[in-house]
Amino acid sequence: MTVILAGSGIGDINNVTIGVLELVKKADAILYDALIPKELLEYKKESCELIYVGKRAGSHYMKQDEINKKIYEVSKKYDLVLRLKGGDPFVFGRGGEEYLYLKERGVKVEVIPGISSSIAAPLLNLIPVTHRSVSKSFTVITGHEENDDTIDYEALVKLNGTIIILMGIGATKKITDKLLKSKMNPNTPLAFLERADLPDSRCIKTTLIKANSVKEKEDVKTPGIIIIGDVVNILD
Amino acid sequence: MTVILAGSGIGDINNVTIGVLELVKKADAILYDALIPKELLEYKKESCELIYVGKRAGSHYMKQDEINKKIYEVSKKYDLVLRLKGGDPFVFGRGGEEYLYLKERGVKVEVIPGISSSIAAPLLNLIPVTHRSVSKSFTVITGHEENDDTIDYEALVKLNGTIIILMGIGATKKITDKLLKSKMNPNTPLAFLERADLPDSRCIKTTLIKANSVKEKEDVKTPGIIIIGDVVNILD
Repeated sequence: MTVILAGSGIGDINNVTIGVLELVKKADAILYDALIPKELLEYKKESCELIYVGKRAGSHYMKQDEINKKIYEVSKKYDLVLRLKGGDPFVFGRGGEEYLYLKERGVKVEVIPGISSSIAAPLLNLIPVTHRSVSKSFTVITGHEENDDTIDYEALVKLNGTIIILMGIGATKKITDKLLKSKMNPNTPLAFLERADLPDSRCIKTTLIKANSVKEKEDVKTPGIIIIGDVVNILD
Repeated sequence: MTVILAGSGIGDINNVTIGVLELVKKADAILYDALIPKELLEYKKESCELIYVGKRAGSHYMKQDEINKKIYEVSKKYDLVLRLKGGDPFVFGRGGEEYLYLKERGVKVEVIPGISSSIAAPLLNLIPVTHRSVSKSFTVITGHEENDDTIDYEALVKLNGTIIILMGIGATKKITDKLLKSKMNPNTPLAFLERADLPDSRCIKTTLIKANSVKEKEDVKTPGIIIIGDVVNILD
C-alpha cells in the first residue's frame, strides 16, 4: 500500500541511484516507462509483477489518467509498488499528478529523485549548463505544443542564460523562429542532443539561425534535447 | 592519468549513482568537497589517497585556482583520480573550469552527472519544479553577489515559471526586493529548503513579501535553496 515514484536517470544503468536500485530489488510490482534503463529490471525479485505503462504497440501512448488509475489499482494488490520513470519524476514527468491522484485516494506515496536529462544530457556531451562568466542561469522548458502561448520568449531571451528544451526536436522551427523574432543573436550556439546517453547518441552543434536546416539535413530524431547558449562550445 | 569529475548528489548516500559508487571503489585518489555524503568514502580502496578540498578549518574556502592546481598535481601521481563534487559537477559546480584547466595540461578528463540539489531538494520536500497547468518552466540562478547585475529580474518575473535560487539564503532580502520591484505578485508562494535532504533539514513555506522577515524569525541557515512559484503548495 506504499507507492514510490522514482526517477531512473537517463539510458545508462550507471546513472541510476543506489536507492532506486535497492527499491527495484524489493518492489512487489513495478510500473515502468519506455525510457528507463532496461537492465535495471533484471534486478527485480522473481515474484515482482512488471507492468509497462509507456508507449504502446502502434506508438500510442497510454493516457495520463489511465496510468494514474493503473497505479492505484496495482497499489491495492501489493505492499510496495515502484513507479519507475525516466529522468526525474518532477521534471516534466507528471509525477506531481500521479502523487495527487494517489494521495487523494488514501495511498501512501513517496518520491525519489533521479538524474534528469535536462542537466545530464548536456553534461554527457561535455556541455555545462552554467559556466562562470558565460552563463549565470539556465531555464528548462518543453517543446510541447501546449506551451506555444504560455512561454514568454522575449523574457527568455532577455534572461540571457542557457536555454534547455525538452521534447522540442519536433518543434525546432517554431521555437527557433520565436527566439529569432525575440531578437536572440542568430549566431548563438545551439546543439541537438539526440537520444541522450544511449550508445547511439548524437550531439550535433550548430547555431540558432541554422538549426532547422541542420535538423532536416541530419534527420535529428526524438527523443532528444535542444540546448542554446554560449555554453554549447565552451569546453571545445 | 585520468581524472573523473563526478557529482555525488545531495546528502544521502541513496542519491549517489551506481556509477559513482563504482568509481569510489576503484579510484587511486579522491579529491572531495564539503557537501558529499560522508559514508560514501567508506567504500574506497585501502590504498586510496583522500584529499579534502572543501571548507578549510576556520571556515576559509580553498580558492578555485588552488583546487585546479591540486587536482592536476594529484593526476600526475595516480592512474585514476576521482574529483567528487556535491550535486552535479556542471550546475554552478565550476566543473567546467576544472575540466578546461586539466584538458589544457593534457590530462584525460571524464565527467559523470550527479543528482542536483536544484531539482532534488524541492522534490524531497514534495515540491515539483514543474506541474501541468501551474508551471511550464523552471529557471535556476544563484544568489552569489557577482550575479547582482547580471540577472534580468524583470525577465525572470515575466517568464512566469518556477524560480530556484541556489546559495541565495544570505541574499534573501536583495533578491526578494528585486522580484517585488519587477512586479512579481507579492503573495507568490516561496519556500526555504534548508540543508536539503540531511536529517536535520527544514522546509519553511511563506510568500515572496514575507520571505525576509520569516527568514530572520526562523533563522534560516545555509546551505539551502529558495524556490518561488505556485508549485510550492501544489501538493499540499
